[in-house]
Amino acid sequence: MSDEVERGLEGVVVSESRLSYIDGDAGELGYRGYAIEDFAREATYEEVLSLLWNGDWPTPAEHDEFAARLAAERPLDPAVYDLIEELAARDENPMAMMRTVTSALSAYDPDADADPDDREANLAKGCRITAKLPTALAAFDRLRKGSAPVDPREDLGHAENFLYMLNDEVPDGVAADAFDTALVLHADHGLNASTFAAMVTTSTLSDLHSGVTSAIGTLAGGLHGGANQNVMRMLKEIDASDADPDAWIEAAVEDGRRIPGFGHRVYNVRDPRAAILASYSERLGQESGNPKWYDYSVAIEEHMADVTDLAPNVDFYSASMYYQMGIPMDIYTPIFSLSRVGGWIAHMLEQYEDNRLIRPRARYVGERDREFVRIDERE
Amino acid sequence: MSDEVERGLEGVVVSESRLSYIDGDAGELGYRGYAIEDFAREATYEEVLSLLWNGDWPTPAEHDEFAARLAAERPLDPAVYDLIEELAARDENPMAMMRTVTSALSAYDPDADADPDDREANLAKGCRITAKLPTALAAFDRLRKGSAPVDPREDLGHAENFLYMLNDEVPDGVAADAFDTALVLHADHGLNASTFAAMVTTSTLSDLHSGVTSAIGTLAGGLHGGANQNVMRMLKEIDASDADPDAWIEAAVEDGRRIPGFGHRVYNVRDPRAAILASYSERLGQESGNPKWYDYSVAIEEHMADVTDLAPNVDFYSASMYYQMGIPMDIYTPIFSLSRVGGWIAHMLEQYEDNRLIRPRARYVGERDREFVRIDERE
Repeated sequence: MSDEVERGLEGVVVSESRLSYIDGDAGELGYRGYAIEDFAREATYEEVLSLLWNGDWPTPAEHDEFAARLAAERPLDPAVYDLIEELAARDENPMAMMRTVTSALSAYDPDADADPDDREANLAKGCRITAKLPTALAAFDRLRKGSAPVDPREDLGHAENFLYMLNDEVPDGVAADAFDTALVLHADHGLNASTFAAMVTTSTLSDLHSGVTSAIGTLAGGLHGGANQNVMRMLKEIDASDADPDAWIEAAVEDGRRIPGFGHRVYNVRDPRAAILASYSERLGQESGNPKWYDYSVAIEEHMADVTDLAPNVDFYSASMYYQMGIPMDIYTPIFSLSRVGGWIAHMLEQYEDNRLIRPRARYVGERDREFVRIDERE
Repeated sequence: MSDEVERGLEGVVVSESRLSYIDGDAGELGYRGYAIEDFAREATYEEVLSLLWNGDWPTPAEHDEFAARLAAERPLDPAVYDLIEELAARDENPMAMMRTVTSALSAYDPDADADPDDREANLAKGCRITAKLPTALAAFDRLRKGSAPVDPREDLGHAENFLYMLNDEVPDGVAADAFDTALVLHADHGLNASTFAAMVTTSTLSDLHSGVTSAIGTLAGGLHGGANQNVMRMLKEIDASDADPDAWIEAAVEDGRRIPGFGHRVYNVRDPRAAILASYSERLGQESGNPKWYDYSVAIEEHMADVTDLAPNVDFYSASMYYQMGIPMDIYTPIFSLSRVGGWIAHMLEQYEDNRLIRPRARYVGERDREFVRIDERE
């Protein structure tokens, strides 16, 4: 025990984990020992959930059973739609809506009263939460625009079904693959703040709904989620400026502007997820015949490589990718939560296996031995 | 940076604080340098909120203004009553209800879009959350029993108004004082898990609603809140057994039963809050002419002092106190949250002043370099 203040707990090792492996110097990320580049384009998000929650890839039979179970859990109780409609009418912030709906889902979960460390019940709850959040987000986005929610379809995959519910149209071209890959790439990333918040919450043996609710509230903060919105704002600023993108970024850097989407507390080199998302951003531009969003991004990356040591992070290419898919900018962070929920649940499942209450200390640096004066004698 | 795993972060100092001072060996607890014994019976919960949030006791004029502001914030939006009614109809767990309602309150908060570290907006939000949670809890308890909610009254103090809304009757005798003192005594206690969860959440610059929501979800876990429910179950078991309480506790200890309400991760001696609550438990028994719940508690404490080193903690006497006030056992932990919300907000306000993202590490102990096999080639 040291009395040094570990601000931000930077570098403090709080647990052991078998989930994601990150080498920030080498730019490597793996889930359960599999390198992300090897499976990002080949495995679906449903397969990744199985990998994270159960320890290895599902067999075809296991996959079919799991995917069907997940698909069957997509519908929401009518009262949850009422809640979403009310929040949409109040113009609630999308992340706050996600937090409230996640919390409310426990009232409709048949396993809500199970022991908090009952693994089978937690897998069932994890399926339900993961399956229902996309339905909630799509419904919210439609309701706030005055459209009716679109019911989920069991015959579509997790990523494809979300885009279908959002747009009332089964996605064509590369969109569903791109979105599925984005979900795969964001599913887990060590003990980021939201994952750690989930772990602190369930370290009291609280339940998965509480843990995911804490995580969403934590992801909502500007220092965690939200960077890809800022990237997209920059790309739109370039577009509106009519300037040459190379000239624009050169001037912006010279003006000392902070360029979003570069650098990462963990990676010292290019985030391995960025390259994969870049290729989808490029393909979406080719498909639509309008490659400008991808081109602006490349111009920025090339200039930044010339003048800084900072490499693009996962947020840099997801911005232009989501934008080209027609996804509203203010749900980029909720979409992050649709993916990361798989990792949050995986970390909580891992923690329940060998739990310990997380309770650090603060050093008291305030005054002492002050004399109390009753209110009627105070001045 | 050490690579040792700090399980549970026990003994790790994560921040400096000027809020509560705890000396576990001496059995001392103070808020902002004032010893809890000196003010617990003299200062109201409203005064303690001012102390924690602003650094010192309010003057009479400041107190009147703050108390009036808090009282004016008690009513809930009709849509929040609808949500509570729906959760009551689903027989939702009371702590899950508190979590969902806290989260939903952001949709109705006029400062919801303020910068997360805007101190004035945060004090306004803090007032609203602290003022509205008792209204929500009382309404939920009444609605699940089939009664109509009772509107808050601005002319009653924070503690008195809660008991009034719960029972549709202004409390007489010592009950309001006892409840107010319980709120004062539970308002802050260093970095317990729920307070730390709130800090992790807002360390991303997320908002107070997210922080309090995380804290409530964390407090809901069996390792944090809930001990006084277990104490009360034990007292009722003694009562139902018709055994002499001295004989009952002697037999229970000999049987190796874990006796709830004793021992604390922080205190090695008697929790200073226990003595104060014990006196209210005694007075409630005298008032009603039925001292048995207090007498059972004393018998247990005396026997435990003879046979163990464990002293009663804050939960031990709050059990018989709340029970004698007619409060349902399953809302003891929600009542804890009505008090601790003041401390949660105080810690978040303190953190916003000098924030740093809280992001520890996990040590990866899983497999490496596994070879990915596509699903159609898996067996």
